[in-house]
Amino acid sequence: MPQYKLTYWPVQALAEPIRFLLSHKGEDFEDFRFERENWPAIKPSMPFGKVPVLEIDGKMVHQSTAISRYLGKEMGLAGSNNWEDLQIDIAVDTLHDFRQAVGGYWYETDEAAKAKKKEVVLNETAPYYLEKFDNLVKENNGYLANGKLSWGDMYFVGVSEYISHMLGYSMFDKYENLRKLRDNVITLPKIKAWIEKRPKTDL
Amino acid sequence: MPQYKLTYWPVQALAEPIRFLLSHKGEDFEDFRFERENWPAIKPSMPFGKVPVLEIDGKMVHQSTAISRYLGKEMGLAGSNNWEDLQIDIAVDTLHDFRQAVGGYWYETDEAAKAKKKEVVLNETAPYYLEKFDNLVKENNGYLANGKLSWGDMYFVGVSEYISHMLGYSMFDKYENLRKLRDNVITLPKIKAWIEKRPKTDL
Repeated sequence: MPQYKLTYWPVQALAEPIRFLLSHKGEDFEDFRFERENWPAIKPSMPFGKVPVLEIDGKMVHQSTAISRYLGKEMGLAGSNNWEDLQIDIAVDTLHDFRQAVGGYWYETDEAAKAKKKEVVLNETAPYYLEKFDNLVKENNGYLANGKLSWGDMYFVGVSEYISHMLGYSMFDKYENLRKLRDNVITLPKIKAWIEKRPKTDL
Repeated sequence: MPQYKLTYWPVQALAEPIRFLLSHKGEDFEDFRFERENWPAIKPSMPFGKVPVLEIDGKMVHQSTAISRYLGKEMGLAGSNNWEDLQIDIAVDTLHDFRQAVGGYWYETDEAAKAKKKEVVLNETAPYYLEKFDNLVKENNGYLANGKLSWGDMYFVGVSEYISHMLGYSMFDKYENLRKLRDNVITLPKIKAWIEKRPKTDL
């Protein structure tokens, strides 16, 4: 079994999909969560100064989506062919577009600009994306793509509490199919066990 | 041969990697470039309201990275195994981090905020990323990953004029290894032919 060490802030956010996938794979991993004051010391040793970073037998890899796709392929949670992989990749990168739009408001430091962006995100961006995702999941039998479970579903649900926290409401509340997607992931026995034992955090 | 139709603004930007890959594959494709005033009419028919969108035998797919990975795999420009694919994916998603940081300044509409962001991008972000990319390419024999040509290199070079335009200088100027990477892509005969015949645009 490879040795895994995951380095990230003490939150779910972009590391949680990786934690879901490692848990589902049944891997032990070191879940290293650094405190805010230690980041300046850690940053220079990260490949492009960002986290999450996963060490696999001492080799550092970064980019949460790339790592999740890699782990998904390792455990048979990719598509059955190139076209199916494309559908998963489209869904995940579209989720990032949505996450970044929400983050664009959340991380804005100018108060006036933040208020303006918040209004657009809450009234336009979020309903637009969430309704489209809900339809996509409806067409795909409770999953994001190809009518079956993939690493993309793990990514979506893994990162969802972070996005919900930034929105100020659960992104599942109004969307029946998104709730089915969530349930299809969080009821997997090893994911369920991970969620029960993970540190409790806001996002 | 599949029928391809690519829909995008009349610029290189995020569509150019797809144009590179289709050209390198030797595919004819409809290169549909809409004018700015027609976007409101086109937007609602795009899957998540964004472009580029590629139609493959009438089926719409979106997300430039996902499409490029798909085309790359179709023509043997992916990695030889999951680990090699991971290295390509890391490089491309890191390029997006850089592109989005540069775009964060370029698309800022508040003039004071734009000036502040420009300073950070030009003095910190760009040198940081470009030097790291230059080292990565040095370690990889003139390519982004695995010491050999991949769809990731096509992506990098395809999107580079857009990033350079936003920066206000060529991202290759100071970086010998990045120039090697560029040359390794633009001297491929079908890419060379595409660059010669493509519409001339600023970005």
